[in-house]
Amino acid sequence: MQRRPFLATLGATAAAFASGARAQEEGGKKLGWALVGLGSLSTHQIAPALAKAKHSRLSAIVTGTPAKAEQWKAKYAIPDSHIYNYETFDKIAENPDVDVIYIVLPNSMHEEFVVRGAKAGKHVFCEKPMANTADECRRMIAAMKQAGKMLGVGYRCQFEPHHRECMRLAREKTFGALKFIEAGFGFQIGDPTQWRLRKNLAGGGALMDVGIYALQACRYIAGEEPVEIAAQETKTDPVKFAEVDETISWSMKFPSGVIASVMTTYGFNGANYFTATCEKGRFGMDPAYSYDGLKGWTSRPEVKIEFPATDHFEVEMDAFSEAILANKPFAPSGEQGLKDLLAIEAIYKSIREGKAVKVEGI
Amino acid sequence: MQRRPFLATLGATAAAFASGARAQEEGGKKLGWALVGLGSLSTHQIAPALAKAKHSRLSAIVTGTPAKAEQWKAKYAIPDSHIYNYETFDKIAENPDVDVIYIVLPNSMHEEFVVRGAKAGKHVFCEKPMANTADECRRMIAAMKQAGKMLGVGYRCQFEPHHRECMRLAREKTFGALKFIEAGFGFQIGDPTQWRLRKNLAGGGALMDVGIYALQACRYIAGEEPVEIAAQETKTDPVKFAEVDETISWSMKFPSGVIASVMTTYGFNGANYFTATCEKGRFGMDPAYSYDGLKGWTSRPEVKIEFPATDHFEVEMDAFSEAILANKPFAPSGEQGLKDLLAIEAIYKSIREGKAVKVEGI
Repeated sequence: MQRRPFLATLGATAAAFASGARAQEEGGKKLGWALVGLGSLSTHQIAPALAKAKHSRLSAIVTGTPAKAEQWKAKYAIPDSHIYNYETFDKIAENPDVDVIYIVLPNSMHEEFVVRGAKAGKHVFCEKPMANTADECRRMIAAMKQAGKMLGVGYRCQFEPHHRECMRLAREKTFGALKFIEAGFGFQIGDPTQWRLRKNLAGGGALMDVGIYALQACRYIAGEEPVEIAAQETKTDPVKFAEVDETISWSMKFPSGVIASVMTTYGFNGANYFTATCEKGRFGMDPAYSYDGLKGWTSRPEVKIEFPATDHFEVEMDAFSEAILANKPFAPSGEQGLKDLLAIEAIYKSIREGKAVKVEGI
Repeated sequence: MQRRPFLATLGATAAAFASGARAQEEGGKKLGWALVGLGSLSTHQIAPALAKAKHSRLSAIVTGTPAKAEQWKAKYAIPDSHIYNYETFDKIAENPDVDVIYIVLPNSMHEEFVVRGAKAGKHVFCEKPMANTADECRRMIAAMKQAGKMLGVGYRCQFEPHHRECMRLAREKTFGALKFIEAGFGFQIGDPTQWRLRKNLAGGGALMDVGIYALQACRYIAGEEPVEIAAQETKTDPVKFAEVDETISWSMKFPSGVIASVMTTYGFNGANYFTATCEKGRFGMDPAYSYDGLKGWTSRPEVKIEFPATDHFEVEMDAFSEAILANKPFAPSGEQGLKDLLAIEAIYKSIREGKAVKVEGI
């Protein structure tokens, strides 16, 4: 109910998303999604979301672990012909029941599987961060363009009503011109053996995994791209974080003069927010990036940011399916993913060189 | 009522402060304070606070404006013998009714008048920032030491119950070890002709005037000194802020690994807070640095930060008077003021050189 007014203002994706309500009424087609990588995210978030989505359904799986294939086959009634491993993956090209390939692999594998997905002639949806480097992103975008298929990046918050309302408040200057943003996202990471702590697999630490949410929030609240970044890193556990960043804090300038203070960490829980300070008031979210329980707030009691709980994965996948069905552009696209990697590379460069750096190519 | 438990933990000043309750019961002596500089702060905050203080009273004024001398003389029944201008100031040495000289002048005049106050053989209380440079602070400390008199800096928040409770929560690790601090203080400055926008008088802009509160909060919440700072400046009004900083955002590392994201501005209202993120929860204040209406919060509903309104100027002046009467050390001392200037100089250096810089000499 509350969605229409602000969705209507949010461009191509929003239009496709809103039109989905009609598609559903008319009994719209459900696109078949193949999940590549059956880790925790696929198991606990994505598969349940596909089971209830309106325009998307689980149609195939790709896994390197035969035992997982058996479990999923039993649970979701997936025919053997729709089960692939990383060697047989390319045969997915011959499967008309797969419209979209969703890459849920460690970051270092994104490029390979997006490119292979493009060559298989499928639309591809890729988890964030899009890749480990901006160059990988560029090659992924080029491959998808050559295949003539759509590429989306899994920035689920962009489809979440509280975040969309905050974008609207910023765009419509409800509290006057935006002046300053603070944002942070972090958590205390557990299992020291996980791929997220391996540089060659994850590309980096907290920044790549969760800092990217705070970075994204700054970008879509500001509605412009950062031009200069000054970053600092701290490491309190040099063993656990031998390969990747533990805590990073950075300051980021936008062309309009807006400045953002942002942080991310794998070292402790609690930071999960953004705050927008405008000429005539403030608004924000805390918690901002969790799968549920999100809370928005504003400095004016009469302006509330309250929406019912949403399954972020369901809405983002349905939005991608609807964009495909309507043949309309999808945001967040690969270009969006690339822009985050350009900023992330600037953050790491600033830390490495101990100086403020320009964000190049953004 | 609520004060005793936490004051008892806060060292020398706290002890002097608490003992003041007894002094009052016993009809303790009120020290005579001379106000140097009769601007807005003296008029609207300090003089009214002295009128109700328990251990401090207004005994003399120093002003360069004869009309102000007349107004104050009439309003506060100050004898002619207790009214000075900047030329006759040094005669204050002969006035036994003046125990303390409170310097409420533009920052660039602090050194001169603190040194002259020392030479007059008086205790001196100096508004923040203590001076424009760390070198000025060092000379002021040396002069006071040579005179054998006490030097205090007007960090009013250190005497405010919400702030003191936050220090206690940090020190006692009520929410576990501190991990991250955010802090910011700014406002949209008005009159473009005021001394605060003149570099030679103010030493700098928002950072010198209000950013110092956020810097202070980070230092007393962390309970340690910053070692490295990476800062960025933005300027949206290069005319108004031709000489001084408009908005600065900086990241600051502490030896324990705690990191702080801090901002200050003269460009807009709204930022007036600090947040401490600890292992097992968070706490903070918003607004944090106003003269009244301060609000504390924590992530645990059962841990509240609630205190009655306090006149910050009354409590800080009385604390200084009590320290003098009890002949006990006073914090915040000149060394505290110097430490802020060392951090401030590092912030400006980081901006100037576009790189992260060590805080030297802190």
